[in-house]
Amino acid sequence: MKKHEAAFKRSICPVANTLDILGDKWTLLVVRDLLLGKQTYSEFQKSEEGIPSNILAERLKRLQQAGIVEKRQYQQRPVRYAYSLTEMGRELGPVVRSMIMWANKYIPGTLSMEKIEELIAKNNA
Amino acid sequence: MKKHEAAFKRSICPVANTLDILGDKWTLLVVRDLLLGKQTYSEFQKSEEGIPSNILAERLKRLQQAGIVEKRQYQQRPVRYAYSLTEMGRELGPVVRSMIMWANKYIPGTLSMEKIEELIAKNNA
Repeated sequence: MKKHEAAFKRSICPVANTLDILGDKWTLLVVRDLLLGKQTYSEFQKSEEGIPSNILAERLKRLQQAGIVEKRQYQQRPVRYAYSLTEMGRELGPVVRSMIMWANKYIPGTLSMEKIEELIAKNNA
Repeated sequence: MKKHEAAFKRSICPVANTLDILGDKWTLLVVRDLLLGKQTYSEFQKSEEGIPSNILAERLKRLQQAGIVEKRQYQQRPVRYAYSLTEMGRELGPVVRSMIMWANKYIPGTLSMEKIEELIAKNNA
């Protein structure tokens, strides 16, 4: 291992390093929800996949540590937080988008990009 | 759950369905190796990340079942197989590429797209 590679977990491969942060069944679904405009813990939990609470908490923490997500307090009593994507997080859009295009082509019945864009437009209306 | 959704594990979301196939730390590294032109078990095992043999075997099987990878026998005694991407598998190129672009921008020190393209050109020379 060369000296500048010491900080890397597995290799200097950009794919391996992306997977070290995002490589599981849940993390990119939280990023997807944030891209869709969801902001709170309870909104993430309402998503159809039913992310378990402990996994959601761990993933949000990990995404913050990676610089992908930031949280701010929006309520005092009880304390409540809203989560949003940083610039680094928003720029995962093309990764999510490429997965949507691929699945739409090869996994029949998945929700189409058009329907997803309608959903986003509705959420932002 | 609507009737046409019964076949889906978690939801009709294209991202969730992609992650059901590819969402872990290793599967896309095997796809990466195949995109780089690697074909055999021992070539995959030589990659810097050091994929454990049992994980490699399981992932290749799963990728075949998903229609992403195909194998052919290239030697009789001992029997040896070569693996390659189907069209469905090759079309994961944009997913891998978007991860490379993102990591190059946000994870300093990762191998650049330019160097990776040089590597591919060399492998195909």
